[in-house]
Amino acid sequence: MTVNAYAATAADADLTPFAIDRRALRPDDVAIDIDFCGVCHSDLHTARNDWGHTTYPVVPGHEIIGRVRAVGADVTGFKTGDLVGVGCLVDSCQHCAACDHDEEQYCLNGWTGTYGSVDKVDGTITHGGYAQSIVVNDKFVLRVPETLDPAGAAPLLCAGITTWSPLRHWNVGKGSKVAVVGLGGLGHMALKLANALGAEVTLFSRSPSKVEDAKRLGAHKVVISTDADAMAEVSNEFDLIIDTVPYVHDINPYMPTLAYNGTLVLVGYLGPIDPVLNSVMMVLGRRSVAGSLIGGIKETQEMLEFCGAHGITSDVEVIRIEEINAAYERMLKSDVKYRFVIDNSTLA
Amino acid sequence: MTVNAYAATAADADLTPFAIDRRALRPDDVAIDIDFCGVCHSDLHTARNDWGHTTYPVVPGHEIIGRVRAVGADVTGFKTGDLVGVGCLVDSCQHCAACDHDEEQYCLNGWTGTYGSVDKVDGTITHGGYAQSIVVNDKFVLRVPETLDPAGAAPLLCAGITTWSPLRHWNVGKGSKVAVVGLGGLGHMALKLANALGAEVTLFSRSPSKVEDAKRLGAHKVVISTDADAMAEVSNEFDLIIDTVPYVHDINPYMPTLAYNGTLVLVGYLGPIDPVLNSVMMVLGRRSVAGSLIGGIKETQEMLEFCGAHGITSDVEVIRIEEINAAYERMLKSDVKYRFVIDNSTLA
Repeated sequence: MTVNAYAATAADADLTPFAIDRRALRPDDVAIDIDFCGVCHSDLHTARNDWGHTTYPVVPGHEIIGRVRAVGADVTGFKTGDLVGVGCLVDSCQHCAACDHDEEQYCLNGWTGTYGSVDKVDGTITHGGYAQSIVVNDKFVLRVPETLDPAGAAPLLCAGITTWSPLRHWNVGKGSKVAVVGLGGLGHMALKLANALGAEVTLFSRSPSKVEDAKRLGAHKVVISTDADAMAEVSNEFDLIIDTVPYVHDINPYMPTLAYNGTLVLVGYLGPIDPVLNSVMMVLGRRSVAGSLIGGIKETQEMLEFCGAHGITSDVEVIRIEEINAAYERMLKSDVKYRFVIDNSTLA
Repeated sequence: MTVNAYAATAADADLTPFAIDRRALRPDDVAIDIDFCGVCHSDLHTARNDWGHTTYPVVPGHEIIGRVRAVGADVTGFKTGDLVGVGCLVDSCQHCAACDHDEEQYCLNGWTGTYGSVDKVDGTITHGGYAQSIVVNDKFVLRVPETLDPAGAAPLLCAGITTWSPLRHWNVGKGSKVAVVGLGGLGHMALKLANALGAEVTLFSRSPSKVEDAKRLGAHKVVISTDADAMAEVSNEFDLIIDTVPYVHDINPYMPTLAYNGTLVLVGYLGPIDPVLNSVMMVLGRRSVAGSLIGGIKETQEMLEFCGAHGITSDVEVIRIEEINAAYERMLKSDVKYRFVIDNSTLA
């Protein structure tokens, strides 16, 4: 089946209309008509080959919300009309130590990404959610609460789960003290989710202009990270710092603000931790620096249900597909509060 | 009471004989005649002011084994003649979150070091175990199994607990896969303790000459860290890597050898992690880099009892006190298997 999509055909080219084939249903497949697709920084990095491994043409998009159009012969968990989501993963080996623990995002044999990956069955390159529809193995399809605004729910599939997973892994709950570095697509979800989990939530920001918005989103406090006195006041404070900044930055100033046994977890940045990290604060307080990658399917489902119960969605600006290139430029300037979401009906 | 000791009086001076006063017993004090004192890298760093905060004169030594000579009026846990130990800590606030969890080494109000620290009661500078005797608050005195060789037991008080604490904190036991970086005072204890805890133990070494000794000490396998093929063979392998190297070094090559969810813990090095750490392996496998500092009194006691039950001591070379300066020079060349221990009777 041929459907309308938008693709990047080269690192320096704008995304343009592109027709793609969606496969006929395998027995365990779900066909989804896409209503909305969030726009993640990874989409931009991939379209522009910032990580050096893009295969063109690439159809980005892994924050997908839509309705089931049809299901394969063996599918029992979904039926036509269900509101569903697809995130960053569409397949994994299903039998390694990570998959056995419902952590397919760490699949030891390599998971299949929603776009730009090689399908394990037929060897084709996967295409993402900047398209009218998608066909996905039922194990990687999420149920989305009907009470949630579908456009606002789309970013939960990446920005939401990327911040939810470390909050859960490091046991954040009532009484926890959590700080968030960076107030973008991931950061604003981290504030909402940490707050709803009962934590005392702080935003680190360089800009006093973000104080009001941060508090609206769930921060109890904002610490201006360039203010040495303010930073000293939160020494030994945080059990978990979720660092959502997607570019290289100095994490040393945050280390003394971790409580002993605390962890700073990088969820937005892949690359050298420059300037160099100093081990002194780590050794003297058994502090850790960790990374965390999206989340597993089971915990994504748990997060969606938690969001349904708490009425949590992303703050979004809905765009038409033809605005995608302008949206990328605005993202590079952090000019979005807090996530662009494509109205996929504009692909018709 | 005046006793013989050895002190450094300046960063560039050899250690020389020096008389110190030991205080009269407070009600909760224990007076200990020192039989043996291990020689730790920290002693050397402090004597030479490598960390920039040494107060001279300094009497190093925090791997102390001896016999109780006398106890204060309120002491009930020790009596004259008991074989006891003193490690790196001789006091802490006893009422912060860390002390309440028996982790005095992370005392939020600052613990008192066995040497070079300010005593909380009388404001004097503490002096360590390169001396005939010491007087210590009973909460910081350890019971030492009589079955252990006292010279070999001395390094358990620092090298032993420094490696034991992360092994326990990260739940190493039967079925765990542990690697150790560096085969010195700390590294050889890490091999013995991880092995006795039931883990599968690997030593990373740059030198094939260490294979035989590492296996004798408890390693099941040695991986030559400069051999790219050997390193690739242990990808995704280790739950915990204990990095004992005391100088700046590249930890990036070890990161892919951590299993997903694995942790590399620095126990020997305080300073910039140079060359820069790359976050990619951390994010893609939720791997952590952490630090860990010695251990609490309760877990030090547990470690001593474990060592008593398993017959574990350090491999030591016993020296006379007047050999201490030569020993420091040999330590700088890693020319010791694996810990110098002073026979404190030579101070008489």
